[in-house]
Amino acid sequence: MRIELINTGSELLLGFTVNAHLNYIARKLGEIGLRLERQVTVGDARAELHSCIAEALARCDAVIVTGGLGPTADDMTRDVVAELLGRKLVRDETVAAAIAERFKRRGIVGMPESVNVQSLVPVGARVLSNRKGTAPGLAIEHNDKLVVLLPGPPRELKPIFEEFVLPMLRQRHGVSAPFDCRTFKVVGLPESIVEEKVAPALADIRDVELGYCARPGEVEVRVISNLKSSADEAEKRIRGALGDHIFGTGEERLEEVVVRELIAARKTIVTAESCTGGMIANRITNVSGSSEVFLNGWVTYSNESKMNQLGVRAESLKQFGAVSEEVAREMAESARTRSGADFAISATGIAGPTGGTPEKPVGLVFIGMATLQRTVVQRHTLVFDRETFKFFVSQHALDMVRRELLGGRG
Amino acid sequence: MRIELINTGSELLLGFTVNAHLNYIARKLGEIGLRLERQVTVGDARAELHSCIAEALARCDAVIVTGGLGPTADDMTRDVVAELLGRKLVRDETVAAAIAERFKRRGIVGMPESVNVQSLVPVGARVLSNRKGTAPGLAIEHNDKLVVLLPGPPRELKPIFEEFVLPMLRQRHGVSAPFDCRTFKVVGLPESIVEEKVAPALADIRDVELGYCARPGEVEVRVISNLKSSADEAEKRIRGALGDHIFGTGEERLEEVVVRELIAARKTIVTAESCTGGMIANRITNVSGSSEVFLNGWVTYSNESKMNQLGVRAESLKQFGAVSEEVAREMAESARTRSGADFAISATGIAGPTGGTPEKPVGLVFIGMATLQRTVVQRHTLVFDRETFKFFVSQHALDMVRRELLGGRG
Repeated sequence: MRIELINTGSELLLGFTVNAHLNYIARKLGEIGLRLERQVTVGDARAELHSCIAEALARCDAVIVTGGLGPTADDMTRDVVAELLGRKLVRDETVAAAIAERFKRRGIVGMPESVNVQSLVPVGARVLSNRKGTAPGLAIEHNDKLVVLLPGPPRELKPIFEEFVLPMLRQRHGVSAPFDCRTFKVVGLPESIVEEKVAPALADIRDVELGYCARPGEVEVRVISNLKSSADEAEKRIRGALGDHIFGTGEERLEEVVVRELIAARKTIVTAESCTGGMIANRITNVSGSSEVFLNGWVTYSNESKMNQLGVRAESLKQFGAVSEEVAREMAESARTRSGADFAISATGIAGPTGGTPEKPVGLVFIGMATLQRTVVQRHTLVFDRETFKFFVSQHALDMVRRELLGGRG
Repeated sequence: MRIELINTGSELLLGFTVNAHLNYIARKLGEIGLRLERQVTVGDARAELHSCIAEALARCDAVIVTGGLGPTADDMTRDVVAELLGRKLVRDETVAAAIAERFKRRGIVGMPESVNVQSLVPVGARVLSNRKGTAPGLAIEHNDKLVVLLPGPPRELKPIFEEFVLPMLRQRHGVSAPFDCRTFKVVGLPESIVEEKVAPALADIRDVELGYCARPGEVEVRVISNLKSSADEAEKRIRGALGDHIFGTGEERLEEVVVRELIAARKTIVTAESCTGGMIANRITNVSGSSEVFLNGWVTYSNESKMNQLGVRAESLKQFGAVSEEVAREMAESARTRSGADFAISATGIAGPTGGTPEKPVGLVFIGMATLQRTVVQRHTLVFDRETFKFFVSQHALDMVRRELLGGRG
């Protein structure tokens, strides 16, 4: 089955937005053994969009078009496709009602008339309902070909793609065995060392494709095979080679693993952050169910707040400086004692780009973890832009907790 | 001048790599008043690549192809283009010498024979020398059309693009003025209402292209024109239509605007977060220089921490519940009083997906802002996934501060 993807939106061709849809859709297709033959980006220009879709239809079995289903004048995908396939647009009352309900629930009075265009559906199209926004997806069977239209916002597109489009494509594709694609997520090792450990261990396994992807603060190792037995053997060896550096599989995030393990261990946690400015708490509370384990956090950015809110000693700040092992330790211990939590993690460092000195350069950070039994402080130098620095620090902090929980379990 | 971009590489179509070339090249073209009409991604498959380039050549004046110039078996762009244009490949001795020199300098003995393919050049092509790698770029004039081939690695592609390709395109393009592209960032209005306000106000301005892009919690309005006077007039009317809903221009983020305005007003701020779990503090501290204005934050997730760390009254929690106007008010006021900051913002709500009740459904949130003069609390219902909910709440909270600072200035 030949599949092409068309992404619409002038912002993509102006370079203002990264085309994340391509990555997401390509990965999801890969999981069921399908791949894209071609991808085209086109602006919000009617004639251009028309020829892009017509050309793709001439070449392939399925065309997926993203974007251009919204209510504004530059949204023209629905129109162009209806015209191209010679189908009238008719109002779908279920969609119209859902849109009105959505506005009502958000408390917006005076829904603009333009919104109604989103309830128009080409005759014979299947409506793929959108639980996260107003414009539904649409699927149209036309001369043995499948045309799928998806709304542009990622949080709307993804549920529709997974709930409706993947099953439709899988069904058309027939029962051929999907390839087995397994991803292992690794923390605490750079990509080159991950490869150095993994590649030799798998050298003699045939029928296995091995890939690596370095992301901020973690590395993904990917194994693709058409044979389950080969994938199993590869997984066994990868796990052997990387041990507890593997924190999860697939698209799991480190904070999800930490919250899950805390819940399993019936332990609670608090955070005391300076340089990460709330990012650790934010990541933990992104996980549904985190309120079972996360009690509270302090973001003590100023020295005064370190003293007043957390009781860090003025002498420690004076003698060692805010960015020091001693202050990281006091922050973690005080946060744990004041809250009564089982774990406290702290971070104090220099995110940059300014504020560094020869003794304490930009990127220097101390990360503390206090438990009832002990307090440990790690020192790192992480030279990145500000947000990446914060993310790396939060990875280290979360990983300290994960490893402590692993140890406690063993 | 019609320009198309073709990006080659199977990793792009497997979703393993983001297509950063598109963004880079599109932006650079924009700076000299050019834009891409279309972009195509194609895998490392000979026939597919051949038809992609042939089709693009039939449509446009200039085709830029990235990737596939390396020494490995999946690099086939040079070959395909030579065949397509009916030009022989000949060895360029200058390129060959530069490649040999490069290997020598890196101390690699035994340069693989495969590397030599990179010194092959289609007859009549201009060599665009690569100071960061082995494969040079190539530019071929063919029947009044321009074909540019660029190596895939970004650090090799960028210098070649800037040193050779941009000047060539600028020259072909003639001296016409670059287009004027202005982006206005809007908060507090959904996309459909933004268009309802903007479109009629600009209806009679010619030579202006108007675009909208909805992002979580904000909308971008984009104006493109070849005439500065039209862009100026459009900007004036957009600002008139949207007023202080416009918080910034270009790629400015709301938190950057808030920090900048706080610095300008010499005011300080603290945060008292429940449902946002540290996201507001995290966004503020993402801004370099935020330590001038951000003192500290509380993330009081549990009821106990609301009482113990912030002094929220037990009776308020009992009588009104943690998600209430009263508790949002006490959180903000107490955070301000305890820290001595000029501003305190608070948020308490139900992020979901669980935890809602008929009286207090998922998405309900109270956002407070306390100043020396007054405390205000907004009530919203924001039905989104967990992270988007948190982001929307943080947008509202930051926007309350921005508007207060605007008012104070006026």
